[in-house]
Amino acid sequence: MENFQSKDPNFETKIKQRLSGQHFMHLMGFDLIDIQAGLVKGEMMLSQKHLQQYGFVHGGVTATILDITMGFAAYTLMPVGKGVVTANISIDYLNPGDGEKIIAIGEVEKPGSKMVFTTGRVFVEKNGIRKQIATARAVMAVIEASQ
Amino acid sequence: MENFQSKDPNFETKIKQRLSGQHFMHLMGFDLIDIQAGLVKGEMMLSQKHLQQYGFVHGGVTATILDITMGFAAYTLMPVGKGVVTANISIDYLNPGDGEKIIAIGEVEKPGSKMVFTTGRVFVEKNGIRKQIATARAVMAVIEASQ
Amino acid sequence: MENFQSKDPNFETKIKQRLSGQHFMHLMGFDLIDIQAGLVKGEMMLSQKHLQQYGFVHGGVTATILDITMGFAAYTLMPVGKGVVTANISIDYLNPGDGEKIIAIGEVEKPGSKMVFTTGRVFVEKNGIRKQIATARAVMAVIEASQ
Amino acid sequence: MENFQSKDPNFETKIKQRLSGQHFMHLMGFDLIDIQAGLVKGEMMLSQKHLQQYGFVHGGVTATILDITMGFAAYTLMPVGKGVVTANISIDYLNPGDGEKIIAIGEVEKPGSKMVFTTGRVFVEKNGIRKQIATARAVMAVIEASQ
Repeated sequence: MENFQSKDPNFETKIKQRLSGQHFMHLMGFDLIDIQAGLVKGEMMLSQKHLQQYGFVHGGVTATILDITMGFAAYTLMPVGKGVVTANISIDYLNPGDGEKIIAIGEVEKPGSKMVFTTGRVFVEKNGIRKQIATARAVMAVIEASQ
Repeated sequence: MENFQSKDPNFETKIKQRLSGQHFMHLMGFDLIDIQAGLVKGEMMLSQKHLQQYGFVHGGVTATILDITMGFAAYTLMPVGKGVVTANISIDYLNPGDGEKIIAIGEVEKPGSKMVFTTGRVFVEKNGIRKQIATARAVMAVIEASQ
Repeated sequence: MENFQSKDPNFETKIKQRLSGQHFMHLMGFDLIDIQAGLVKGEMMLSQKHLQQYGFVHGGVTATILDITMGFAAYTLMPVGKGVVTANISIDYLNPGDGEKIIAIGEVEKPGSKMVFTTGRVFVEKNGIRKQIATARAVMAVIEASQ
Repeated sequence: MENFQSKDPNFETKIKQRLSGQHFMHLMGFDLIDIQAGLVKGEMMLSQKHLQQYGFVHGGVTATILDITMGFAAYTLMPVGKGVVTANISIDYLNPGDGEKIIAIGEVEKPGSKMVFTTGRVFVEKNGIRKQIATARAVMAVIEASQ
């Protein structure tokens, strides 16, 4: 990953404050475990509520944790007063998700003043073995955000 | 929409049976309200648990109900013994989601024996006014599915 | 299609002037045949130079005429002094392209001051029968463009 | 990149034979310069014919050389009697393309018997400095191909 510089030294605190409003993230049980300039990582333990009818992780779970980590990765590079919203996300599901834990990593590929290009990856861990189950790309739109 | 013909006359029953295994869908509170050959529609009332930090519907909610309705729309056209999984989904977020109710419609654009091309739309309703908030396209991969 | 209003009454003239700089479009032989506010249509006769090794239209030809018609469709809605560039394009190839003529239609789905969401479709005609071979979606970024 | 194993030891010869039918690739002047199992690289010198009205590389040129290198990267892993066609391609345009030379690299991310997930990158070189202008992902569908 490129070595990005944040325009707001308090980006980690700012993200942690915003997490309280991430109700859908909490419903799922997902947590951020690493917040750097241009990179955000999160994980959660998998249980029945995250599954679809074949017994694998629901594609919506994977999409949600990609959207969260890629969005916050972009947000780490925003100056004070700016936020981001997802304009487009495209997800490739490489493998069925079967495991005890799920991990998502969102990264900035190219920051900009109007849009930020990001990439994301999702892994599951089963018996200590990590397997990638999805790759994604998203265009994040920069918005005014006074909060 | 094109007038599609299902290869399994029991497709509606088959989908309803599968819904019991859709744990993540139930966690969200989403329900299917219309199941036709090549088209599936669902909806749910919105509450705080579906929101992100700006007070709008979480992008992950929108992605999940798109994935469900597009996947089941493809599934209505599967012969007995076949199922579908999402290979790629691409979602454009047109407007912020602000409303009392959210509706998703998934439709088949082009069926095939190995992959099915589908489209999806998501709307919110507020004070009786419906507004589209997302459009999506997905490539569904056909798999063997004995269940 | 929604009934869009252009912010520049000379949009058709402006596009025709820009076409002279579309060198790659001319290399292919593609021409615009309909320019409306929010919708642009073009076509060309197919010959060997447009094909790939299976004898079908090259995916790059399809991608190029989608990019052109979707980009100009967005451009019809730009005020004086603004232009658009493609940020993301996602193309589904529904059928192999086999025919005498190819037609592309680009349309605006949702205009905005920073980005414009567009959709596109490509058809081939063979013996008077028209068949759709691709569908696309693109996010166009609005830029300053003095020319 | 993962170390992929081709199922056909003659994959390089097979691709070189197919290039003669790549008419649109020849119209552009693009050549493959590296063919490995799971990775294909190509390049060309840029001239006026590759440009759009702002003087940058046409998005259709970028899309075409991505489609070619990603498709052939997938093809290197096909057993005898199988080919690939693009099902979906999604391209992010990171920077305007301004340079003397353009380079595309297509790589397999996840091979499969029905579909192959691939990634691609495009760079321009100007005064000896290389800059990435696009990233892409594509789902390639495996087909029967006797030729």
